[in-house]
Formats: sequence, structure tokens, C-alpha cells
Amino acid sequence: MSSQPETTEASGPVVISIDAMGGDRGPAAVIAGIAQSAKKNSEIRFILHGDAAELKRLAAKRLYARHLDGRCEYRDAAEVVSMDDKPSQVMRRGQNTSMWSALESVRNREATVAVSCGNTGALMALSMVRLRKIPGVNRPAIAVLWPSRNTQGFNIMLDVGADVRADAEDLLQYAMMGVSYARNGLALSRPRVGLLNVGTEEHKGRAELRSAHELIEGAAESAHYEFVGFVEGGDIPGDRCDVIVTDGFTGNVALKTGEGTASLIGQRLKEAFAYSPLSRFASLLAFTSLRRLQKRIDPRRVNGGVFLGLNGTVVKSHGSADATGVSAAVKLAFHLAQQGFSDKLAARVASAAEQAQDAIGAQDQEEDAPKEGTHS
Amino acid sequence: MSSQPETTEASGPVVISIDAMGGDRGPAAVIAGIAQSAKKNSEIRFILHGDAAELKRLAAKRLYARHLDGRCEYRDAAEVVSMDDKPSQVMRRGQNTSMWSALESVRNREATVAVSCGNTGALMALSMVRLRKIPGVNRPAIAVLWPSRNTQGFNIMLDVGADVRADAEDLLQYAMMGVSYARNGLALSRPRVGLLNVGTEEHKGRAELRSAHELIEGAAESAHYEFVGFVEGGDIPGDRCDVIVTDGFTGNVALKTGEGTASLIGQRLKEAFAYSPLSRFASLLAFTSLRRLQKRIDPRRVNGGVFLGLNGTVVKSHGSADATGVSAAVKLAFHLAQQGFSDKLAARVASAAEQAQDAIGAQDQEEDAPKEGTHS
Repeated sequence: MSSQPETTEASGPVVISIDAMGGDRGPAAVIAGIAQSAKKNSEIRFILHGDAAELKRLAAKRLYARHLDGRCEYRDAAEVVSMDDKPSQVMRRGQNTSMWSALESVRNREATVAVSCGNTGALMALSMVRLRKIPGVNRPAIAVLWPSRNTQGFNIMLDVGADVRADAEDLLQYAMMGVSYARNGLALSRPRVGLLNVGTEEHKGRAELRSAHELIEGAAESAHYEFVGFVEGGDIPGDRCDVIVTDGFTGNVALKTGEGTASLIGQRLKEAFAYSPLSRFASLLAFTSLRRLQKRIDPRRVNGGVFLGLNGTVVKSHGSADATGVSAAVKLAFHLAQQGFSDKLAARVASAAEQAQDAIGAQDQEEDAPKEGTHS
Repeated sequence: MSSQPETTEASGPVVISIDAMGGDRGPAAVIAGIAQSAKKNSEIRFILHGDAAELKRLAAKRLYARHLDGRCEYRDAAEVVSMDDKPSQVMRRGQNTSMWSALESVRNREATVAVSCGNTGALMALSMVRLRKIPGVNRPAIAVLWPSRNTQGFNIMLDVGADVRADAEDLLQYAMMGVSYARNGLALSRPRVGLLNVGTEEHKGRAELRSAHELIEGAAESAHYEFVGFVEGGDIPGDRCDVIVTDGFTGNVALKTGEGTASLIGQRLKEAFAYSPLSRFASLLAFTSLRRLQKRIDPRRVNGGVFLGLNGTVVKSHGSADATGVSAAVKLAFHLAQQGFSDKLAARVASAAEQAQDAIGAQDQEEDAPKEGTHS
């Protein structure tokens, strides 16, 4: 973590706000996870929200203490948001929950990034009302890292479920936010953006997608990304682009279809190797190969949907995340905080509306076109 | 194939109309594929459309002749629809193509099912104008078989791309058509239907999905299917339902995301086993296990999207299908033809509009409800 790009704004210790309750495995998995991160990374500090007595007890375990000692602050919060709680209820009566408290530390600038394993709907609703949207953002989005054939190993897809609707202007904002995430999260200087559709021909798909195509293409030059045009579902794990832009309904279905397909194949693979004595013997010899495969497709290692478009960044870890999963989410949060991601995203999005206008004006395109050929 | 359910209407030889041109691998792959099918199935006959001289030459090869001899009719068609041809052009000037000719055999009742490896958009457009929609169907749909955790090994999803739009009434029709396909294609007497959404709570998702939920739930009793309510992307390869209903935009993205994810994992698996001498040795021992896995997830063995809602059934095989793929598509076509699927589907859909009305009237539900408890 010592070699930082020149664009980095933050320096020295980075403070992450952690909702330590609300995950399926409880605070033990969270403390174990942040201890893993603390062990690997001397620059990281934590503000832990939840049952302070219980959290201090867990953090004091010999296994963790030597990594966490003196690097955690505690904020006592009596209540926990459950997976069944309705977002509306949490917004009205959630003041004493660890989730609310964790967002409060970002709101008052004690930390720039919060991490939670809790109820996604409630976390997004609370984030909207407590952190508020960045000026210029109509709909915040949830972005995920998706294993891909690209050299960086992952693509970014958004929105995967913050909002079931998205018009052309929203999709342009998603492109802007996805590009900013690709720069700061994947260190891509000139990300390639694709707009998800059912075909790659420009006449195809829904009307709002054709106007979004025009807006995103028009803003590419001045916002320094490459627009590859329409992409299809097969390109989400592919190498045609780095950022896949879509509405939260389509993105959520695609995300869960991909996860379900991967898990079905994983089960079939186990069954295939358990079939006969010979295949079981083979699986022993193949153990390291299979482990290598698992490591490359292990969802725990890319754990964390990022809420974009708010004053501050929120990383949503899987509710079922174990120590490894929590540690992965914390690593992502640290990296984004260190990059000063929240401020850079806000700066980029502030110009999005203007870009939208420029995009339509043919004059600007004529001026920009000769500089670089990004139009594919 | 000899043991036929009592519902079967067709008997004796079954005639399949084959567009023998237009696939990426040309007529050789098609002839090899139908020869495989003819070898396994003595009841099947073919009408082959395309370059008659070339087709006769291929069918006369010693390897195929003993299976195909006397079981093929030929219809000479000078032109071929290419993958780049625009549907609109083909509709206007496609009269001399093998695709048009193959549909003509269904139109004039020489065959009840046509199979083509050609351009999907052109095939759907031609099917619409030449075969026409069944009375009561607003939008035809493309249905696919999807590998799943269910005992039958597959789920049915529709629409996967016939139309990017679908309102609540369309989604009810998709449910009706999917149920009919599940009965005749997967031999499920009481299929479980799920409506694809981003959450399983009834208040979630887009407005048209909530009214579709009401329509499909209301028609379940009288149409003899079970409605499990909203399902998510992860349920497409799952075991919560047998038929997944969605619009053609979402379905197409889900289909291609699933295919892309499976192919990425397959590549990673190869890389894992090619990594070191030991892993390569292990892969030799694991060969049969891996073959077993490949057989279970081999897309060629579930080859064929089915066009539903037309006067006659059209099976769209992958453009890149080899002999095994073509044979799989022909097997599916034979099975559906033998079941008298086209007529059964038409009968079922004729009542769909009526079902929609019944569904909304609370009275009918009160009458139906006591009979059986299908509402989950």
C-alpha cells in the first residue's frame, strides 16, 4: 500500500467506520475480519459501531488483540437492523441501530467510508437520508466487481439494485460514477464503458437506451473514457469493456443469475469428483488445481457492493460474509478511502449534467473528435 | 420413444421441416445431425430445404445413407439467409431462401415443427408473417431450457428475446405458453411458475410486475399450474419453480450472462488443470470426471430455443451448432411434434384472455380456491 499514485489525496492512517452487527454471522466474524485486515495493513484504523462491551471483549482475544490494540474506537449502539426489517421502519425508528451510527461517522467526517454486512434495502434507504445525494445525482447506484477476462481480473457493473428505474440521464450518471470507480478502484486511467442491451446494433433495444447511447457517447471525450457502445450479457464477464452500465432491475437479475450459475456449476463439479473411487482419487491429486480455481472464482474475495452517488462511500458486504469476506470488503473500503474516492466522484459527477448538454451539441463533438479517436 | 403418454395426439412417422442452410457450419453439420437423430429414432422423417443437389450428395455419403435413405424429401431453395441480413429485408425479399421454404412446410401442414440454425431475428420476423400469431397471443415468445437443480434437470425461461417489451397481459400469456411447454417438453403435469423480479416481496419491483403477479396467480387454479410468486435471478438455475416468466429484454440479458459465466468458469477450469505437470497428470486421472461434468453442462445437449405463440412450432438451433447440437434440436422438435404440442398450446392460449378476466374477479377465486391449494 506504500506506493500511492500521485492523484492520492489522503495520507497516513485511514479510518473506516464499521457496522459490526447485523451480519448473519454476528460481530465475531466482523472482528475476525478487521483483525485480518489490520494484520496486513498498518495504516488502517476503525470506528466500531454496536454492542461496545461485546465488541471490546471480542477484540481483546489474544489472537486479535496484537493487531487491533489501540487502533479501534467504539460507539455503543443498543439496537441492530435485522434482515427482515422494512427500510421505511428503519428510517423512522433506526436512530439507535449500529447501522445508523456507522453512517453517522461518515456524515460527520470522522470517516469517509462505511462498511456494513446488514440489510441492503435498509442500508441504502438510511444512506440516502443521512448522507444525502451528491449534487447532480438523481439516483444513487450500487456497483459490483465482476470476475472477467480483462487483465485487471474484474469488470464493474452498475446499477445492481439501488433503483429498478433508470432513464437516459441516470444511465449517463452511472457511466460517470462507474468510470470514477474504475479509475480509483481498478487503477484504469481510461476505462472502456459499455451500455447493456439485447444486441450490439445501434437501432436495437428500448428507446431510453438509444438516447442514453447518444449521451454517453457524447460525453466520452471530455470525461476521458472510451465508449464501446452497446454490449450484451455475455460481455459482463468478458473483455470488451471495463464498466457495464444498466438499470438496477436488469443489473440485479444479471448479478443473481451469474451467481446462481456459478454455484450450480460448482456443485456439479463436486458431484463429478465424488462419483467413483477413481474420480475421488483424482480429486486428491487435482486438489491444488481445484483450490487455484476456487481462489479465482471465490466470491468472498470480491466481496462488497459499493453505493455510489452519496456524500461519502458505503461498502455493502454480503450478509453471510465470514472473516475472509469482511476483510475483503474492508480492503476495498481502505483503498477507496485512501484514494480520496468520495471527493473525486463528487467532482466528476458535478459536471455530468453539463456533459449531457455538451453531448447533444454537435459543435462540441466536432471540436473534441480530432483530439482522440474513442468512438468505436 | 415407444412409451407415449395418453395425451399424445400424433402417431406413426413424424415429419420435421429442416432449414438445412444458414448455420455457421453449413449443410454438412445439419445432415450429420439429422443422420444422428434418424439413427436413434425410426419414427422420424425430414423435409430438407436448401441446395437440393448438395443436400442429396451429403445425405448419400455411406456414413449417413443407411440412416437417411428413403426418409428425406427435398425442397430446392436457391438463396440462404445470412447472419448479417436485416429481418426487414428477408421479409420483403426472402421468398427464395431455405428459411422461408422451411416455414412454408409448416404453414401448409406438411410438418408441424420447423428447425433452423439461421439468423434469429430473421427467423422470428419470417415466422410472424408466414405462420401468424395464435388468436389471443399479443407477443410470441422464445423459450429456452436452462440447466437447473430440479429433478427434470432443466427449467424453462421465456421470453429470452422475441420482444423487448411485455405488459402484464403478455406475461400471463408467457406463463400459459411456458406451462404448456413444461407439460409437453418436460412431462410436468402441474408446473410451478415463477415471475422474475428483483425481490420476492409482493410490494417490490415495477408496476406491471405487480399486476402480472395478480393475473398469473388468479389463473393458476383453472389452468392447473402452481404459482410460486416472484423469483430472483438465482432461481433460474434453481429448484423453486419450473417455468420462469420475464420480458424479452431481461430474459435475453439473463440468458447471455449465464452462458458467459459458464464459459468463463470452463476456461478457468482448463487453466487450473494446465498449470503444472502435477495438475496436468491429475487432469488425466480426472478425465472421466471432467467429461461427466461437461456432459451435464454441455450447451449442445440443450440446444434449441422454441418460438411459442405461432401457428406451428419453430425450433431455433444455435448458429454454431455442430452435428450433436443439430441432433439435440431435432430431438426436441420431434418430441414436441409427437405430443401434438402446437395444437395443445393453441387451445391453452385461447383461454388465456378469459383467464385474465377470471383472475381479477374475486368471485371465481372463491369458487376455485377450495378445490386445491396451489397458492404458495
